[in-house]
Amino acid sequence: MIQSQAYQQIRVDGHILEARTLFENMRIGLAASAALLLTSHATAQTGNGLNLMPMPTSVRSGAGRLSVDPSFSIAVTGFKDAALERAIGRFVAELSRETGMSLKQKTAGSESPTLLIHAAHGRESVQRLGEDESYELVITESGAKLTAPSPLGVLYGLQTFLLLVETTADGFSVPAATIDDKPRFAWRGLLIDVGRHFIPLDILKRNVDGMAAVKMNVLHLHLYDNEGFRIESKRFPKLQEAGSDGLYYTQNEIREFVAYAHDRGIRVVPEFEMPGHNRSLFAGYPELASGPGPYRVDPGGVDAVMDPTRAETYKFIDEFIGEMAELFPDEYFHIGGDEVSGSQWNANPKIQAFMRSHGMKTNADLQAYFNQRLQKILSKHHKIMMGWDEVLHPDLPKTVVVQSWRGQQSLATAAQQGYRGLLSFGYYLDLMWPASQHYAVDPMSGAAASLNPEEKSRILGGEACMWSEWVTPENIDSRIWPRNAAIAERLWSSPDMQDTSSMYRRLDKISQRLEWLGLTHRSSLVLALHRMAGANDVSALRTLAEVVEPVKDYARWSSLKGVWDFRAPLNRLVDIAHPESEQARDFRDALETYTGSGYKDEAAEGKIRARLILWRDNDAKLHPVLEQSFLLKELGSLSEDLSTLASAGLLALDYLDKSMPSPNSWRAQQLALVESAKTPKANLLLMVADPVQLLIEASEGRKQEP
Amino acid sequence: MIQSQAYQQIRVDGHILEARTLFENMRIGLAASAALLLTSHATAQTGNGLNLMPMPTSVRSGAGRLSVDPSFSIAVTGFKDAALERAIGRFVAELSRETGMSLKQKTAGSESPTLLIHAAHGRESVQRLGEDESYELVITESGAKLTAPSPLGVLYGLQTFLLLVETTADGFSVPAATIDDKPRFAWRGLLIDVGRHFIPLDILKRNVDGMAAVKMNVLHLHLYDNEGFRIESKRFPKLQEAGSDGLYYTQNEIREFVAYAHDRGIRVVPEFEMPGHNRSLFAGYPELASGPGPYRVDPGGVDAVMDPTRAETYKFIDEFIGEMAELFPDEYFHIGGDEVSGSQWNANPKIQAFMRSHGMKTNADLQAYFNQRLQKILSKHHKIMMGWDEVLHPDLPKTVVVQSWRGQQSLATAAQQGYRGLLSFGYYLDLMWPASQHYAVDPMSGAAASLNPEEKSRILGGEACMWSEWVTPENIDSRIWPRNAAIAERLWSSPDMQDTSSMYRRLDKISQRLEWLGLTHRSSLVLALHRMAGANDVSALRTLAEVVEPVKDYARWSSLKGVWDFRAPLNRLVDIAHPESEQARDFRDALETYTGSGYKDEAAEGKIRARLILWRDNDAKLHPVLEQSFLLKELGSLSEDLSTLASAGLLALDYLDKSMPSPNSWRAQQLALVESAKTPKANLLLMVADPVQLLIEASEGRKQEP
Repeated sequence: MIQSQAYQQIRVDGHILEARTLFENMRIGLAASAALLLTSHATAQTGNGLNLMPMPTSVRSGAGRLSVDPSFSIAVTGFKDAALERAIGRFVAELSRETGMSLKQKTAGSESPTLLIHAAHGRESVQRLGEDESYELVITESGAKLTAPSPLGVLYGLQTFLLLVETTADGFSVPAATIDDKPRFAWRGLLIDVGRHFIPLDILKRNVDGMAAVKMNVLHLHLYDNEGFRIESKRFPKLQEAGSDGLYYTQNEIREFVAYAHDRGIRVVPEFEMPGHNRSLFAGYPELASGPGPYRVDPGGVDAVMDPTRAETYKFIDEFIGEMAELFPDEYFHIGGDEVSGSQWNANPKIQAFMRSHGMKTNADLQAYFNQRLQKILSKHHKIMMGWDEVLHPDLPKTVVVQSWRGQQSLATAAQQGYRGLLSFGYYLDLMWPASQHYAVDPMSGAAASLNPEEKSRILGGEACMWSEWVTPENIDSRIWPRNAAIAERLWSSPDMQDTSSMYRRLDKISQRLEWLGLTHRSSLVLALHRMAGANDVSALRTLAEVVEPVKDYARWSSLKGVWDFRAPLNRLVDIAHPESEQARDFRDALETYTGSGYKDEAAEGKIRARLILWRDNDAKLHPVLEQSFLLKELGSLSEDLSTLASAGLLALDYLDKSMPSPNSWRAQQLALVESAKTPKANLLLMVADPVQLLIEASEGRKQEP
Repeated sequence: MIQSQAYQQIRVDGHILEARTLFENMRIGLAASAALLLTSHATAQTGNGLNLMPMPTSVRSGAGRLSVDPSFSIAVTGFKDAALERAIGRFVAELSRETGMSLKQKTAGSESPTLLIHAAHGRESVQRLGEDESYELVITESGAKLTAPSPLGVLYGLQTFLLLVETTADGFSVPAATIDDKPRFAWRGLLIDVGRHFIPLDILKRNVDGMAAVKMNVLHLHLYDNEGFRIESKRFPKLQEAGSDGLYYTQNEIREFVAYAHDRGIRVVPEFEMPGHNRSLFAGYPELASGPGPYRVDPGGVDAVMDPTRAETYKFIDEFIGEMAELFPDEYFHIGGDEVSGSQWNANPKIQAFMRSHGMKTNADLQAYFNQRLQKILSKHHKIMMGWDEVLHPDLPKTVVVQSWRGQQSLATAAQQGYRGLLSFGYYLDLMWPASQHYAVDPMSGAAASLNPEEKSRILGGEACMWSEWVTPENIDSRIWPRNAAIAERLWSSPDMQDTSSMYRRLDKISQRLEWLGLTHRSSLVLALHRMAGANDVSALRTLAEVVEPVKDYARWSSLKGVWDFRAPLNRLVDIAHPESEQARDFRDALETYTGSGYKDEAAEGKIRARLILWRDNDAKLHPVLEQSFLLKELGSLSEDLSTLASAGLLALDYLDKSMPSPNSWRAQQLALVESAKTPKANLLLMVADPVQLLIEASEGRKQEP
């Protein structure tokens, strides 16, 4: 691991704070926990800074603070419209909620307002990729001024202001500062798969609020997949009628939702996946498929693909896209194009004959032919085509945008060939990585790093992806947040932002703010624990739940018995346990402090010991609870492992405390237990196994100097 | 205190559970904590029963359980309409959320459904007082059947079913049982004052959901008061324009809201307070007032009253009530009528002349004259008049309904005179009483107990009152819930339900369920603590926050410096601390177990000791946090008191543990500290002072036999 360090000085409230920024050229794909341990070790001495996420391009701290009290007022000069008024209204409402002061919106005639807002001109009626998103926020003791080319920048500046509000000994206030800010990438997206599990609009709305808070600007809706068709078509009503369980967005709902997102600076890019992942579409229109059917949105089922050889297919697509173009004003339409299985094409003699007569050798050639015709239809409806890596083909025009789920190499290749692209590899939220692992992924790293400037300019940004095989309305917030905020910072802020300690400190704060916005990423856990524990007390269960994480990457799939049943209840601990355990992270941090002090830091040791005692004693309390719930029975050995690990950790701590090397035989025995505790159980990982292992190993007696 | 006991046998799942029901003729007005201690002491041996609240009229338990799994289905026979379909849809959605199974609504053609629903006939289009609300729910191992005269009973039966769902070792299931149920009182209401602090409709809606869950059936909206006018009038637009800060319900919103409530079996009864509490009304129409004005909705201001001598006043009322009658379909309109100050009448020569010429001797006579004319206007618009105690006057027709804030005596007097009435005295949620204190209040007790049957039939029920002087959108849920559920049980269930241990056990469960419904009575605390603590950790603050309660009754008013400012921020601990501390209740329960065992119960002692150690050590952690926040500084001595009390309690525990009498001088000294800790600080009471006092007193050495 190559490391270099930079120092950045930030003046806050008269004090010089030293913010040590650490550059890390971290290899993607390191095991999550190992990456986390190494990173947090290397950056343990990082100082405090402002609680901003994403961090602005430039922050110069000034002297003093601006008070935020009930006299708070706002004036607007320059461009004004109803949307800007609404934005200011939301800002005042949020400031009111977060301070508990019932502030009123005073926008007219303020002589010396607390906050002066000035936008030079209006926004585009349809938000455009690459529109100027910059803003400047100048805060002094006597007032703040937010200026931006358009209200888009004002939206971002208001979010920054909200993050700066602090509770102090003298009242609420924001530190004096001059902030110049604009995004590094123009495309900062979040994909939500509403096909596999339907997500109601109120939940999408609160996620849009969250995206706006972290300055993301694209919501990519994966509108259907084999398991469900989620958007009303009036021309082809069997799409939603046969293709869903009644759970879909009506056209009126989606229009209102798109306007809601636009108000908050978020583009809604729809995905109409073709020609694969189409089973729900064929349920109503089997004639579009390459195989005979019948098609139903049941678990399992054939891997069905559109028939690209029939004129009727393109007639359908033309009419359908035409209808959808009226609903989704964004210039970009995503057509999916990934994971097209060739089996139906191979098995259809007419398709084979078509390929032969057109000189096509591979199924990839056939898909390219399909995509070319698709692209022309989109173009007719004034839409620019996007697709996953697989759409990349020399026959497609250079306007096509490639979204890479395969990696930076694929993105770089596309850029070299003249295509624009964005990165999603490394940003798959469903893989349950820790935030630090996503944070280390940069669209410009790897193969992209050696592109020339023109090629680099074709890399538009990235998109976090929330695939929903194991996602429900209940757990979706906890899968997206707070980790998505780390990705948002990667896409907005300087690539120099590499300090994971600073990232986690600020992530905790933004996570808190996201709960104010109505997201339930923290609160949903406790409710679910009550469901699982029935009438029993949940405190012991919570202690266990807070130190486990769902298995990573695609490990959960391998535990499936039979086919994946998208209708199966998702109500076990693996479905709601946080992707990243804060308790385990805290414990690792304390352990690092203790180790770094040469085992002399008593506060850290006390914290470690208290936690280990809690965990050691937990199984005795939890065991009877587990016995009484069918949802919890599977957690028995996990709970025992936690107690076993904690007992071993306490003994190791005693050895260290007494500066007495632990016996080799004891250590070998304990390390074997640790190995066994590392095996996933009930699709969950015990996240304290690694730090306890470090403790046991350290008890051998190799002391580190403070 | 007179006590008698009854025994009630309930057969659950093959076991005979003995539910000891305790009748207590508890005097209202006992100090809250004393009442609680006595009650829970007397009922400590109460057995377990079903988690139902309010408890049904009759529950006969059967053998076995009905499984609730993904195959769950519903069939409807008998009456059907869209409202019933929606009710079933909500039921299925709630069952899905609470079990984490994505159940589908299957209402047609089920051969052997899990749940069969049968309503004999439809509901009234406008929900009527006294409409048949009964239902029968029969659950066997093979299925459940819910029958009711009308869908109103079905609504209640579905709520009961939801409460019966339990997590067991074998899956989700409900116990076999036959439940016959109907309410004791026809009027089971909650008043929400939206005048003094505006409460947005989404918050009212989730409170309607909560009311439906506990089978309340009237939401009484106190629509305006001196501080704000909250309902749009198109005929008199200055009412909301000059009378509010822009926060009011539009007519379209209120229509939609009334329909929402009707769907859930809740009548919306509006209150148009006259002739007092009218300052916000006079802001736009000063000509209606008895004094010259001007009138503004500012803090302080004159105690203004309508002029009942002018024809224009009645013209206004007639037109205004006519307009409102179209918005609020309920047969009952509340006209307030309380706390009419005579000062403006006394000072107005024209009014004095009018009184003389009409032979009126007192202001009460003038108010009676006003009410008579008001009653005729209401009657013309087909509305029945309600008012507070003060409206009671022999000249008014017997159709008038009296709402008593003064007590059972006032209610009994009205009933004797032939008026119908309901009780609100004893149900004021803003007085911060513990649930047990509200629970002990019965509309039929006190003076009402000696009424004859006909007079008793005039007592319609009661209403909990949420006056909003100190209430905001943030804290309102925590002020209403879960305590309101105890009042709901008092109004629905048998008067024999007097066991507070059973009540609290079931209250904890319903509180849990209310959070599933979106209420924030628990979750709002943690967010507010984060606001107060700024960037600091909140765990020590939470420890303190969980053992304090806001001062009771009207004590907060006496701490006011100057006039009450309804615009002042409500963002301190007193504004969000729970009215009843669960931690303190748990601690008292453990102490009672320990004392009852003759100081031998080691588990109880361990729990007490752990809690005392936590509290003793808390101030050292909390102190630096308090210093850094202007919202927390006022809590310094409260935090010190907690540590001091805990230290004293630990010493007392040591004496008891060693069976060693504590020295008299030490005890005297400690009891003085306890007295000092009982003084409210920052408008908060330390709820562990009383139990620690018991511990110290017990350490004298008078042992109680187990």
